[in-house]
Amino acid sequence: MMVKNRLLKNWNLLLIFLFFLMPIQAQYYKFVDPLIGSEGLGNVFIGPSAPYGMIKPGPDNDVKSNSGYSADPNKEIYGFSQVHVSGTGGGPKYGNISVMPFLSEDGSITLEPTSHRNEEQVELGYYSVNLSRWNIQTQITTSDRAAFYHFSYPQGVKRFVKIDLGKFLGEPSVPNPEAREAQQFVSSEIEIVSDYEVRGYSRIRGGWNNGGAYTVYFSAVFDQPFTEFSTWKGERLYPDQKIQIDTGAKTGAILAFTGETNDVQMKMGISFLSELKARANIDHEIPHWDFSRTLEQVQQKWESIFKRLEVEEDAPDELKKMLYTGLYHTMLMPVDRTGENPLWENNAPYYDDFYAIWDTYRSSSPLITLLTPSRQVDIINSMLEIYKREGYMPDARSGNHNGRTQGGSNGEVVIADAFVKGLEGINYKLALDAMLKDATIPPGNNEEKEGRGGLTDYNRLGYVSTDFVRAGNRTLEYAYNDYCLAIVAKNIKRRGEYWRFIKQANNWQNLWRDIEDHGSRGFIMPKDANGNWVDSIQCGTKYGRTSYVRYTPVMQDWPICVCWWCGFFYEANSWEYSLSVPHDVAKLVALSGGKEAFMKRLNTLFDLGLYNVANEPSFLSPNLYHWIGRPDLSNERIHAIIDKNYNCTPSGIPGNDDSGAMSSWLAFHMIGLYPNAGQSYYLINAPYFRKITIHQENGKDFIIQTKNFSPQNKFIESVQLNGIDYNLSWIEHSEIVKGGTLILNMGPKPSDNWGKEMLPPSLSDNEL
Amino acid sequence: MMVKNRLLKNWNLLLIFLFFLMPIQAQYYKFVDPLIGSEGLGNVFIGPSAPYGMIKPGPDNDVKSNSGYSADPNKEIYGFSQVHVSGTGGGPKYGNISVMPFLSEDGSITLEPTSHRNEEQVELGYYSVNLSRWNIQTQITTSDRAAFYHFSYPQGVKRFVKIDLGKFLGEPSVPNPEAREAQQFVSSEIEIVSDYEVRGYSRIRGGWNNGGAYTVYFSAVFDQPFTEFSTWKGERLYPDQKIQIDTGAKTGAILAFTGETNDVQMKMGISFLSELKARANIDHEIPHWDFSRTLEQVQQKWESIFKRLEVEEDAPDELKKMLYTGLYHTMLMPVDRTGENPLWENNAPYYDDFYAIWDTYRSSSPLITLLTPSRQVDIINSMLEIYKREGYMPDARSGNHNGRTQGGSNGEVVIADAFVKGLEGINYKLALDAMLKDATIPPGNNEEKEGRGGLTDYNRLGYVSTDFVRAGNRTLEYAYNDYCLAIVAKNIKRRGEYWRFIKQANNWQNLWRDIEDHGSRGFIMPKDANGNWVDSIQCGTKYGRTSYVRYTPVMQDWPICVCWWCGFFYEANSWEYSLSVPHDVAKLVALSGGKEAFMKRLNTLFDLGLYNVANEPSFLSPNLYHWIGRPDLSNERIHAIIDKNYNCTPSGIPGNDDSGAMSSWLAFHMIGLYPNAGQSYYLINAPYFRKITIHQENGKDFIIQTKNFSPQNKFIESVQLNGIDYNLSWIEHSEIVKGGTLILNMGPKPSDNWGKEMLPPSLSDNEL
Repeated sequence: MMVKNRLLKNWNLLLIFLFFLMPIQAQYYKFVDPLIGSEGLGNVFIGPSAPYGMIKPGPDNDVKSNSGYSADPNKEIYGFSQVHVSGTGGGPKYGNISVMPFLSEDGSITLEPTSHRNEEQVELGYYSVNLSRWNIQTQITTSDRAAFYHFSYPQGVKRFVKIDLGKFLGEPSVPNPEAREAQQFVSSEIEIVSDYEVRGYSRIRGGWNNGGAYTVYFSAVFDQPFTEFSTWKGERLYPDQKIQIDTGAKTGAILAFTGETNDVQMKMGISFLSELKARANIDHEIPHWDFSRTLEQVQQKWESIFKRLEVEEDAPDELKKMLYTGLYHTMLMPVDRTGENPLWENNAPYYDDFYAIWDTYRSSSPLITLLTPSRQVDIINSMLEIYKREGYMPDARSGNHNGRTQGGSNGEVVIADAFVKGLEGINYKLALDAMLKDATIPPGNNEEKEGRGGLTDYNRLGYVSTDFVRAGNRTLEYAYNDYCLAIVAKNIKRRGEYWRFIKQANNWQNLWRDIEDHGSRGFIMPKDANGNWVDSIQCGTKYGRTSYVRYTPVMQDWPICVCWWCGFFYEANSWEYSLSVPHDVAKLVALSGGKEAFMKRLNTLFDLGLYNVANEPSFLSPNLYHWIGRPDLSNERIHAIIDKNYNCTPSGIPGNDDSGAMSSWLAFHMIGLYPNAGQSYYLINAPYFRKITIHQENGKDFIIQTKNFSPQNKFIESVQLNGIDYNLSWIEHSEIVKGGTLILNMGPKPSDNWGKEMLPPSLSDNEL
Repeated sequence: MMVKNRLLKNWNLLLIFLFFLMPIQAQYYKFVDPLIGSEGLGNVFIGPSAPYGMIKPGPDNDVKSNSGYSADPNKEIYGFSQVHVSGTGGGPKYGNISVMPFLSEDGSITLEPTSHRNEEQVELGYYSVNLSRWNIQTQITTSDRAAFYHFSYPQGVKRFVKIDLGKFLGEPSVPNPEAREAQQFVSSEIEIVSDYEVRGYSRIRGGWNNGGAYTVYFSAVFDQPFTEFSTWKGERLYPDQKIQIDTGAKTGAILAFTGETNDVQMKMGISFLSELKARANIDHEIPHWDFSRTLEQVQQKWESIFKRLEVEEDAPDELKKMLYTGLYHTMLMPVDRTGENPLWENNAPYYDDFYAIWDTYRSSSPLITLLTPSRQVDIINSMLEIYKREGYMPDARSGNHNGRTQGGSNGEVVIADAFVKGLEGINYKLALDAMLKDATIPPGNNEEKEGRGGLTDYNRLGYVSTDFVRAGNRTLEYAYNDYCLAIVAKNIKRRGEYWRFIKQANNWQNLWRDIEDHGSRGFIMPKDANGNWVDSIQCGTKYGRTSYVRYTPVMQDWPICVCWWCGFFYEANSWEYSLSVPHDVAKLVALSGGKEAFMKRLNTLFDLGLYNVANEPSFLSPNLYHWIGRPDLSNERIHAIIDKNYNCTPSGIPGNDDSGAMSSWLAFHMIGLYPNAGQSYYLINAPYFRKITIHQENGKDFIIQTKNFSPQNKFIESVQLNGIDYNLSWIEHSEIVKGGTLILNMGPKPSDNWGKEMLPPSLSDNEL
């Protein structure tokens, strides 16, 4: 535990230093618990990472886990690999360049050392574990593109480190081109450069996005010489052979240390360009052997973001943990690979691991925009570069390859969100071209990869017919994507495009079928290419006969009858999706039979458990009461949902965190704001904190100040904005940007007038 | 000239050796003149290359030249780069890892040394030039993946070698994503590994096929240490700095030699996987410093192919030059990159630089099949791997990326050609899947890259409408592609697919318009999506008004009115394309008004100069007289075309050789056979040689033996196959495979009966 001790000492010094320099501030990064969401469905990455960090070193004890990690104590660690994603589902990606310290019990060497774990310690920027089989402590911290490993071995033994280039997450390595979503091994190469350094690469293809090959180069440098080494190729070990060249085989190296110290330190740089660049990333970012300094730096990088969102110091630790861990999860991805792009010459920002925008456009992007708009500008410019060079913006992207689309082409929402919030430094004319590409050019064979699948139907019929999979959510999402496109077009004076797409924004109504289910009317339902409603869907073939099942708004067709990606809706049912019309809730209310009927509909959704907190299409649903003048009901629902589903334990995230989607949804609601992504406002609800200050990049503070804040006073009774009574249940982003104070007067019962009269915007209020 | 002298001595020894070992055979490789086709439009690569060789080292003196080389004596050599293609048009590709020997005139060092050339000597496997500015002789030979350079400097000076990773062919390096067909620089890296070795890579994107980034890794090893070195990045030179890492900049190295010898030898290995693999390619292929041994090896590789096609020893040298240079050009590409595939784990064959199958399917593939069927099996299996891993077979491919399609999805023809010729070792069920993919799944946004553009039209209307570019040749080619697909489907008992696609094979008739032009009736003409013939095409906009021009069968619309790739036909006019129905010439004859009218039509085509020998769609046209019982007229036309257009001078190829397309067309006609690719037979014409023996891979000889061969006796009067009278004007591939003798009795006038009655096969004779 030597490093940790040194670290604590340094911290004390730093604290003393800070004490004299500035008023003492809470160190928010200490409230981050990377283990939140690591059990159950969360799938978060638990190892250290810088914000949007390219290297994500962490333990792997389950090749089938999306994060490489399983909380199951029976699963043995087989290595620490350098690239991971966080919160994802589907076929795992990455898990490259696996490192493993071990001992030889009997003088022989195994290529597959594994160990149970003990004394696991997980903090922001720091991971430590004792490999109990040999009593080896492994500590890890990291910078952006290089990681720092500290291995503490028992005294007086020959100490081994394995570097394994054949490891990766996913199905057992079957190079089967038909294996959908499985990563497949391509090739690897290793070189013992000196007795201090090893270099090489691992080339892998596939994984969730079914992308082409990507290559992770590495350089590993040690603080002491290794005295023996072997390399291997395939199953065979070659003592003292320095090079295993790329012949399409799995390679690796085993290094032995016999120096006087029991500790071995290793810096591991990675690159997507070359081994020398990987080495340069070490030299540039960690030009020393001071573990604690690297740890401090990554902590401070996070702190500089977290401190933009200040809450009262005496707020309960659990709440702060939930909030700041939410921010942390949101900013692990996409990954900043600027200067690491092997695809085109470019000094422009380059981000990878959009995984997926379908998940993150609703709350993650708006949260990044609120706290660090300059970062969001970079991310969007990177999306536009990808469009320019490859033809389409990503809807998802990983390993330098676009793919897969889940529903819409949601880059439109991200761009519109930036546009209506006034982000500067984006070429919106180019962005409109990128959006028009999505909206007009069918991706053909690549409709799983990018663009809009079923676009020919959509543009011909006004909806996607049952000839295409995921016709329901595609239609809904394209309609909203079109709305977003139209808004940008209108404001840069492209009237023709505006009129075409603002009309198409109503296309969701073409699948609105006036049927009743559980007491509510009107649902998005399947329709064939001839315009006929489809009542039954195919449900498997047995003894040569195809059976059909009646399609209803409550059924989730995909797991029962058709393949996962082949249903009418993706990941949710019609009860949920039919409410997913973020640009025209007023019309939704009207079609549902008016305010009373709509309230009943929402109540049914939540009370009967038809709502799934983990489904992104339902992210806005608890807020929909705002559109019938009942923000108090939104308020109650949201708090009930959070209190039931979220907490600060390892199982505190109720579904795949999806690259921070669920975490950012939580973070927004904890500060009493919720964005309607693509539009310029936030809905107002009761926050979890007494006072929230947003220290904006522009230097202006926006304060959300509650009065009479207490567990009993759970309702907003009245609001003042900058000292003036404010009756709207939403607030424009531009008000926040200007700086100011929003006072929320809390009370024990719903307000008589706040949020009752003026309702949040809807397309059918103003347009057409 | 030291190496050459050594070489000649070795040759003498070899000849003496061979004399005692086996009967003396002509060394056909000596008849190859790589300069044929190097002036004018041929665009052939003139440097040394192994058959299908991955490395193609050669001089670059024109960045705008497709081969890097211009015969213009005013254009100065700026380097010798390692990767080239042969015979191509459009935006240049490759030209990577440029090497240049030079001297410093005044002690200063230039990063851009160039020199006029002198004493150029070009032979198979060998290139030599004197850089007259400094009197440096550069000699080059090569193996498959490593090249051997011998630089002879003047006595007693400091000798420089530059390795430049920023050079590539194409437009001046503008990293402009809109620059179509231009290569764009991505990045590079260089490392001085020791005073004997330099390694690095150059990463480039774009070029003719608009492909994504590809990386050429290299290792250069010297026969003596360099005593000084500098590396550079961008414009700046860094003396003694060993490494320039990848930062997206152009890098390189300048090495200085001051040893006692005036000669510097360098072995240059390349790889598409890694620098170490590039080095291993040297060590594996050229583990010595014997230039002449490497030269002999590459000569013998070619000889082992050439000797399969034996002609009489006393044939005129010019004819042998034309024949064997034709074979040589045909077998430069596609490039064998087996074991060099960075895209997927694979021990299967991997070929790149299909450039383009549209050009090569007609005669190049059949020639490879005839002489080395095992090679063609490998090439096809590589196409099927690409389909399996990436979704479509290539129609063109370069730099590890599919693209661009010119007309049809001509992989279908290549596969059918292999199938009907009985090639074994191909999974034809998988091949059918690949063909069905082309025929049924639109490539959408990627229709320039792969698959069938305008497929939605074609499958809905039975033709490609004027809504799509290149609608004319696409329709014609898809119809033939469908025929090929159907033939394979039929024979592997896929009746459903057979019936669908054999019907579609008639789709060309949907664009057959019964109009008259220059005395002939019926032409493939543009039709809109509503089924109306289109009389005029858009011809540019001036002063806001769009002008139209009447579309006629003789016009080539693209250069005049619309963009190069946007016309109704690609690269030819309707007079040419309307005869491009290789599966149903009988129907073509009927629609044209019968045999007499068709003869007149063909005569008009040739006599009025409407036929262009360099247009691949017209490759079969001179043979069409066979289908009206007049093989004598085919004979006359073919000999006239060859005598007028082809010769053994540098301008002896009348158009872009297109990766050997024109050369293989010539080679076939010189031996009196011409394939109708995709079908199982060869048309018979008078050969240019008295006796031709095909020594087949299966060990059986097929002999074409003329009788009364003389310049006057230019007609085939009668034929015997294996001693039996043979009245057909075509011969099945299976007859050749069996081995046997075809006797052609030549005479001064056309035969009265040979080829007159039974006509070569046509779809409308037998099917439907």
